[in-house]
Amino acid sequence: MALLEQLIDALRVLPGVGQKTAQRMAYQLLERNRDGGKRLAQALEAAMQRVGHCERCRTFSEDPICVICASAGREPSQLCVLETPADQVAIEAATGYRGLYFVLLGRLSPLDGRGPRELGLDRLAERLAQGEVRELIIATSATVEGEATAHYLAQLARKHGVRASRLAHGVPLGGELEYIDRGTLAHAFGSRHAVESSDPTSSGASQ
Amino acid sequence: MALLEQLIDALRVLPGVGQKTAQRMAYQLLERNRDGGKRLAQALEAAMQRVGHCERCRTFSEDPICVICASAGREPSQLCVLETPADQVAIEAATGYRGLYFVLLGRLSPLDGRGPRELGLDRLAERLAQGEVRELIIATSATVEGEATAHYLAQLARKHGVRASRLAHGVPLGGELEYIDRGTLAHAFGSRHAVESSDPTSSGASQ
Repeated sequence: MALLEQLIDALRVLPGVGQKTAQRMAYQLLERNRDGGKRLAQALEAAMQRVGHCERCRTFSEDPICVICASAGREPSQLCVLETPADQVAIEAATGYRGLYFVLLGRLSPLDGRGPRELGLDRLAERLAQGEVRELIIATSATVEGEATAHYLAQLARKHGVRASRLAHGVPLGGELEYIDRGTLAHAFGSRHAVESSDPTSSGASQ
Repeated sequence: MALLEQLIDALRVLPGVGQKTAQRMAYQLLERNRDGGKRLAQALEAAMQRVGHCERCRTFSEDPICVICASAGREPSQLCVLETPADQVAIEAATGYRGLYFVLLGRLSPLDGRGPRELGLDRLAERLAQGEVRELIIATSATVEGEATAHYLAQLARKHGVRASRLAHGVPLGGELEYIDRGTLAHAFGSRHAVESSDPTSSGASQ
């Protein structure tokens, strides 16, 4: 059963997959879906070999420049800074944002050896210096390290005379106050804004 | 991002993996463990191509006869009938059983087109007819279909003059009565056995 054991062992590189799950996956593929298993092997091989990073925005891309950076239809004056490619997918799916992206592939964490250089912030600074970017939309996560990164990015933007904005924090849509964590609730309470009844468009989010 | 999307799509053949999990797996492999991803691709390819079924016991095996069936150290007079190769792994890990196995790869389920022939019961009958097997240990699951399969197997054993036994059902070790389901508790109550204080070995399980 050597090959089968190798497969079970190899499946455990997947996040959240332990011995039992790996075994179930291997048996399921062998019993019910060998073609799917072969397709997965080929897709893995190809992706691991050929998917690299976009030279402009650092997201995953098999070409030197990714589809979004290469697109003529995107607005180059807006640049949204994100931690991961997954965050980029979320923003693309949820919003109508038509600007460009810059993916840090992490957040500032000096203790783990992640400084500005590891996040490509030297390249981001060069890009801001070119003068095309007018607004830097900081969409790092709302964690301590994410906030520190956001602070650093805001300073970088100020240095280059670029307007910086940060995603709004507060009560999620549909959230009941009773069940929201205290930090979020305190933040939302502190950041309350005036309700303007005269102009219905002013409270909507602009792109 | 075509290769990346293909990978995310291909990962969804794994049981319990949806779009979000597949995305997380793909990103994690690309960011942190490309070597692990390549190893997984090779292991999958090799297993899907070369792992077949043992000609004697029907479990997964890359050779025509599996390691257990080929072993000279196993007792051929005991044959344990199981539903899946995973059940076989569980029995091997938990018990000191030294006999042989027969894996049904399913259970009797006429509505799904799984009759005796699909479970290899004709081959099992041949094997019982050869006279080497003295005890048929029926370890199908304790579900309705598993019980129906067990009933069929017991009849088959009787026809060939082979003693049939069934795994004991009852309260799991460490189980508190309060939390055990009613079916199990009713079965355990109905199957209660005398406590023999004179002979401490008689209540122990034999191999």
